[in-house]
Amino acid sequence: MDDDMESGSLGPYQDKLRTFPNMRSKAYTPLIFRILLGINTRVLFILLLLGLGAVFYVGASTSPILVFVFSVCILSFLVSIYLTKWVLAKDEGPPEMVQISDAIRDGAEGFFRTQYGSISKMAMLLALVILCIYLFRSTTPQQESSGLGRSSSAYITVAAFLLGALCSGIAGYVGMWVSVRANVRVSSAARRSAREALQVATRAGGLSALVVVGMAVLGIAILYATFYVWLGVDTPGAMKVTDLPLLLVGYGFGASFVALFAQLGGGIFTKAADVGADLVGKVEQGIPEDDPRNPAVIADLVGDNVGDCAARGADLFESIAAEIISAMILGGTMAQRCKIDPSGFILFPLVVHSFDLVVSSVGIFSIRGTRESGVKAPIEDPMTILQKGYSITIVLAVLTFGLSTRWLLYTEQAPSAWFNFALCGLIGIITAYIFVWITKYYTDYKHEPVRAIALSSSTGHGTNIIAGVSLGLESTALPVLVISVSIVSAFWLGHSSGLLDEAGNPTGGLFGTAVATMGMLSTAAYVLTMDMFGPIADNAGGIVEMSQQPESVREITDVLDAVGNTTKATTKGFAIGSAALASFLLFSAYMDEVSAFAHEPFKQVDIAIPEVFVGGLLGSMLIFLFSAWACSAVGRTAQEVVNEVRRQFIERPGIMEYKEKPDYGRCVAIVASASLREMIKPGALAIISPIVVGFLFRILGYYTGHPLLGAKVVAALLMFATVSGILMALFLNTAGGAWDNAKKYIETGALGGKGSDAHKAAVTGDTVGDPFKDTAGPSLHVVIKMLATITLVMAPVFL
Amino acid sequence: MDDDMESGSLGPYQDKLRTFPNMRSKAYTPLIFRILLGINTRVLFILLLLGLGAVFYVGASTSPILVFVFSVCILSFLVSIYLTKWVLAKDEGPPEMVQISDAIRDGAEGFFRTQYGSISKMAMLLALVILCIYLFRSTTPQQESSGLGRSSSAYITVAAFLLGALCSGIAGYVGMWVSVRANVRVSSAARRSAREALQVATRAGGLSALVVVGMAVLGIAILYATFYVWLGVDTPGAMKVTDLPLLLVGYGFGASFVALFAQLGGGIFTKAADVGADLVGKVEQGIPEDDPRNPAVIADLVGDNVGDCAARGADLFESIAAEIISAMILGGTMAQRCKIDPSGFILFPLVVHSFDLVVSSVGIFSIRGTRESGVKAPIEDPMTILQKGYSITIVLAVLTFGLSTRWLLYTEQAPSAWFNFALCGLIGIITAYIFVWITKYYTDYKHEPVRAIALSSSTGHGTNIIAGVSLGLESTALPVLVISVSIVSAFWLGHSSGLLDEAGNPTGGLFGTAVATMGMLSTAAYVLTMDMFGPIADNAGGIVEMSQQPESVREITDVLDAVGNTTKATTKGFAIGSAALASFLLFSAYMDEVSAFAHEPFKQVDIAIPEVFVGGLLGSMLIFLFSAWACSAVGRTAQEVVNEVRRQFIERPGIMEYKEKPDYGRCVAIVASASLREMIKPGALAIISPIVVGFLFRILGYYTGHPLLGAKVVAALLMFATVSGILMALFLNTAGGAWDNAKKYIETGALGGKGSDAHKAAVTGDTVGDPFKDTAGPSLHVVIKMLATITLVMAPVFL
Repeated sequence: MDDDMESGSLGPYQDKLRTFPNMRSKAYTPLIFRILLGINTRVLFILLLLGLGAVFYVGASTSPILVFVFSVCILSFLVSIYLTKWVLAKDEGPPEMVQISDAIRDGAEGFFRTQYGSISKMAMLLALVILCIYLFRSTTPQQESSGLGRSSSAYITVAAFLLGALCSGIAGYVGMWVSVRANVRVSSAARRSAREALQVATRAGGLSALVVVGMAVLGIAILYATFYVWLGVDTPGAMKVTDLPLLLVGYGFGASFVALFAQLGGGIFTKAADVGADLVGKVEQGIPEDDPRNPAVIADLVGDNVGDCAARGADLFESIAAEIISAMILGGTMAQRCKIDPSGFILFPLVVHSFDLVVSSVGIFSIRGTRESGVKAPIEDPMTILQKGYSITIVLAVLTFGLSTRWLLYTEQAPSAWFNFALCGLIGIITAYIFVWITKYYTDYKHEPVRAIALSSSTGHGTNIIAGVSLGLESTALPVLVISVSIVSAFWLGHSSGLLDEAGNPTGGLFGTAVATMGMLSTAAYVLTMDMFGPIADNAGGIVEMSQQPESVREITDVLDAVGNTTKATTKGFAIGSAALASFLLFSAYMDEVSAFAHEPFKQVDIAIPEVFVGGLLGSMLIFLFSAWACSAVGRTAQEVVNEVRRQFIERPGIMEYKEKPDYGRCVAIVASASLREMIKPGALAIISPIVVGFLFRILGYYTGHPLLGAKVVAALLMFATVSGILMALFLNTAGGAWDNAKKYIETGALGGKGSDAHKAAVTGDTVGDPFKDTAGPSLHVVIKMLATITLVMAPVFL
Repeated sequence: MDDDMESGSLGPYQDKLRTFPNMRSKAYTPLIFRILLGINTRVLFILLLLGLGAVFYVGASTSPILVFVFSVCILSFLVSIYLTKWVLAKDEGPPEMVQISDAIRDGAEGFFRTQYGSISKMAMLLALVILCIYLFRSTTPQQESSGLGRSSSAYITVAAFLLGALCSGIAGYVGMWVSVRANVRVSSAARRSAREALQVATRAGGLSALVVVGMAVLGIAILYATFYVWLGVDTPGAMKVTDLPLLLVGYGFGASFVALFAQLGGGIFTKAADVGADLVGKVEQGIPEDDPRNPAVIADLVGDNVGDCAARGADLFESIAAEIISAMILGGTMAQRCKIDPSGFILFPLVVHSFDLVVSSVGIFSIRGTRESGVKAPIEDPMTILQKGYSITIVLAVLTFGLSTRWLLYTEQAPSAWFNFALCGLIGIITAYIFVWITKYYTDYKHEPVRAIALSSSTGHGTNIIAGVSLGLESTALPVLVISVSIVSAFWLGHSSGLLDEAGNPTGGLFGTAVATMGMLSTAAYVLTMDMFGPIADNAGGIVEMSQQPESVREITDVLDAVGNTTKATTKGFAIGSAALASFLLFSAYMDEVSAFAHEPFKQVDIAIPEVFVGGLLGSMLIFLFSAWACSAVGRTAQEVVNEVRRQFIERPGIMEYKEKPDYGRCVAIVASASLREMIKPGALAIISPIVVGFLFRILGYYTGHPLLGAKVVAALLMFATVSGILMALFLNTAGGAWDNAKKYIETGALGGKGSDAHKAAVTGDTVGDPFKDTAGPSLHVVIKMLATITLVMAPVFL
């Protein structure tokens, strides 16, 4: 009532008041995080000291290469501390912005706490299971001869798993921690200049990217060095250094495990809130997106943080960890076969990602605020600026990659091998570039495909969906061709590198593929920065919209938001490309692991055996079923949001006239509890089914006199699931992105513009695309790699 | 104008006149067909005599088993001649029905003529290519030793290919020939009683089913006997009988080739017309389905005939041919390894399908008109009657299957082997039953899944699509589990049958899988009858609607139509199940063929080799791309129909008041030419890509010193394409069927019924499902098997 009177009397300030003044401002942060945040610098200082101590210790005892890696990681943490201070020093803008930002932070941190509570419980349970399995399994001959008993190998694996899970959790938390603080600072900066807003958003994204990548590298390096020193590797009678990387697979699995649930829970949260808010707000009530009257709008903005920032952080962390570990395994195996010094080959991936931290930092700092940041300068295209930074990063990455190969992969036995491997890295970098280009072609409305979807919207909802599905299915072709060419050419470059095993056969092929994968990921930190930029800009736009800022500010955040959509889509292409390459490495690592356990060569997976064929069928089916459950989880949760929002509009009719405040918290709570519930089913499917299949076929093989049957069937499951997963993820991501932009294209005024029948059909396509591109698709990236790491860790079950 | 005056004055007959009297009645039939039809009985009589002559000749010179097969086939042709006479003797009803029926027949036959004209040109071209390849390839050692030179083997393959293509074309033509004549007779019978209409429809369906299955069996038997006699098989120095089945693969490829284009062209035709007619008629103008005012309605009805009847006839023909040939190859290989008499094992599939003809005939004749067919008896549930016939057929099939195994698969070496194989057959029959049940569960609105889609329609178009896609993806799980269990258990039953090779290893495993596949297809003729019943009933309903018959007649055809939808959906489950089993056989046959050509064992396809993995990636991608092109072809063609129908409504405003006749012919012509154009791209993709991939990798293998690389990569392509194809087809078919029935469920009055918002959303889902379930899905069934036969025939290119 008061609000009404005020808005009636205040005349020119009426606009300013079209928001609810008493937004929830109690920003809850879990106790442990508050302590950590409170003693932020002190803890970091201690960590730094400890890190330096470790560097000297292991540097003396393992390898000078690790000293370099540690130093770079610690430096990059210092850089991120600088970036944190820089971002936090920015102002948070007027109180109405701060209130909205607080509500978002509140929701995001609350969900994060509950979600990671569930995840950590599951992780503990799984750790127990792994412990039991390893305590009752047989050990490998190497381990036996090196005195690494059953129980130590069990504790090592479990410890690595838990450390991986913890680091992945921290990576996710950092991503979210930064974005919920950066969003409002970007909004506030947008009131001053576009360039400054861009700079705040990229530095915030860059800071979490550096932490994520740095932690992945540092975690593996620490584990490696610890095991090296503890087990007395390479001393007579002890374990060989080439077997060491196999002990790290637990770390990769822990990271994948957390990333899977983070991505699933976050993906369901963000899209259920988005779809639910749109269905009632935009379609039924006709109010704009991010309107403060929509009770689900805060849930939607929270979703961007937990679904995009936290989940993508955990996802990239897991990608890098899995890729580093599998490349280390392959490097070790190859070096052992060729009887050359293995340390360079094993530690190469850590060095590549250390350089990644350096070149990406340069790229991030190349994006600067202009001098006249106080003046309202004309808006530059932020995409151009980001691309410029990317180009700088790529050029530097090519140089440092060449340097690393010459440094670490030069060997007397094959003097020109390093050059071949440098070319492999170049192939990876080029593949990444082409992938980004293809994704842009299929999802940007400047090009034909998206316009065809927009055109088909003019004949109705049905033709829009048919066009989108067709486009998504078709868009799998070019990436598959590119991946095929790069796998085969990198393999042959490695094969012909001159590295020969004892029998004189070329052996460098697989390692060539590994180097190409590293090349692809050699700018990961910068790519992650661009990706994180998206949801931060999106959130900033939401805050500007909700706090009813002037048109000029909205224009700036709209431009940033649009760029964010493009970078989000293209980094998905990058993620799936690297997943496709990495999974082939992990598959080879799995075969190495099985032959080590089984005390016999395991070089072939013969799909002409019926059981193996069945394993493949089940693997592909797993991907279809997982996608189904991920999509339907969003559908069901969105349904609950729709009902709640409808209820609030009916029970509180004052909301629409700004007289009553909608209950944002209830929507957040509903989405949070529903997505926690819904993430279990698909997640458990992905984790349990390979174990069950492997175990059943192991028993079948035992009774039918077929040795290694379980391991072979799991290998086929893994391979078919990988292939189907790559294709399904490409389909889901591209179709979703194209539908989204077809809608945006129509909103620019094409084919009748906003409100036309074509626009309604395009909104339907966008709704369908939401769970495709932000829940099922990105979760599949994780599933592909998690299947590989789970089979690596669980191999004893199948044998 | 005249019409208008009449309708104004005739009062009670006004309803009768809500149709256009001057429907096109010039029923065009191509000259060659008219001649054939004119001398129908005489030609058949001559064929019969020739057949009997052949029976005695080959019976004396090859095997008494073939005498049995020939006799049954000829008997079944006599039965189909009887059924033809019986169906044609039924009256065609009043002139308005005949006119509509003539227009449909006109359109269908016109399209068929053009379509098969194009197909036959492509087939001739391909025959030339095959001839060239075979003339320049190397021969197998067996062929060399038996004096079967390069040129004879080339002519044999090409002749088999052309005969297969011709027979497949005839199978398609018969399917369509029957349905365009039966539809009006069913409409007319529906005016008298439901039971009579049901009987006419099933007998018409049964007649084409018997011809299709009989021709597949007879064609292979004739080829086999001819080659046997001509090449003097089993005489000293000549070819061995166990190598004979490999000469038949050309027949399978010819059949697949025609079936692929028949299914693609017909599928695009029927769904483009359907979607186009619905989008303008139902959605924009609000007139009912099959309303005579809709210019695209005749095209829609024509589509049922060319898309469902003709294409499904060619599809099943190809399935049976491929399955028989691959089982013959496997049986021959196994008998040779075990050093037992091969003739029983090789000819077993022909006998199984001969019994299929017998038991299915009994099933078809068990559906009778009641005595009181003149009286309007209460409508029984036609599904119950069809199910009763199916049960009879299945019981008889189990008995005859057991009989055949005891007769042909009994061997001194392993006296109980026949019983194991009989159990394999039982597994196949049970698998077929479960498949049908699963399909029903997911697509029938009596069950939960379809109701969930209907419920999700109440929150809009977007949630309807999400629910349907999720359901379709999820529905792949159960069938895959069932197929997995039956492959593994049939393999182990065969493996433990006691059949041992010279080294004492069990060898019956793969043949066990083959027998299970035969079991699954052992009631194919009856299943095809039920399938053909669907479009005939659908057409009959359309004719009744267009000729504005009384409500009671429409009720009868509506019930038949609904049953037809269910049988169509369930037979798709049957088709994909048998394709999944058959493809595994064809894959094994391919490996046998390659090792025969390459003069070395080819027992393994190792997906750990990068090129082989790439082959798998390409194979899966092929399926995605094919589905994309098939769906978008429908979308584009439907667009053309929409524009034409809109144009006619604008340019001839009298249509809506029944004053002007719409130009049906133009719509038919547009759809026909568009679908002929659109079928080329996906069809060519499926045919050319395995050849290109195999050839490229053969060259790569040559330069990198990797023998058989081309063949291995193609094997992986084949296997991954099969697995992805099975899953994709299951997804597309089930999602489409479920959307269709969710719409029907709402039309029964649930959730607001016709015209509600939920209904509109459900119509969107139905439109999306149309190309899924009737174009892309069924085409994938054919692609799966065609890839196997094309790689068999083109193997010389990869080696």
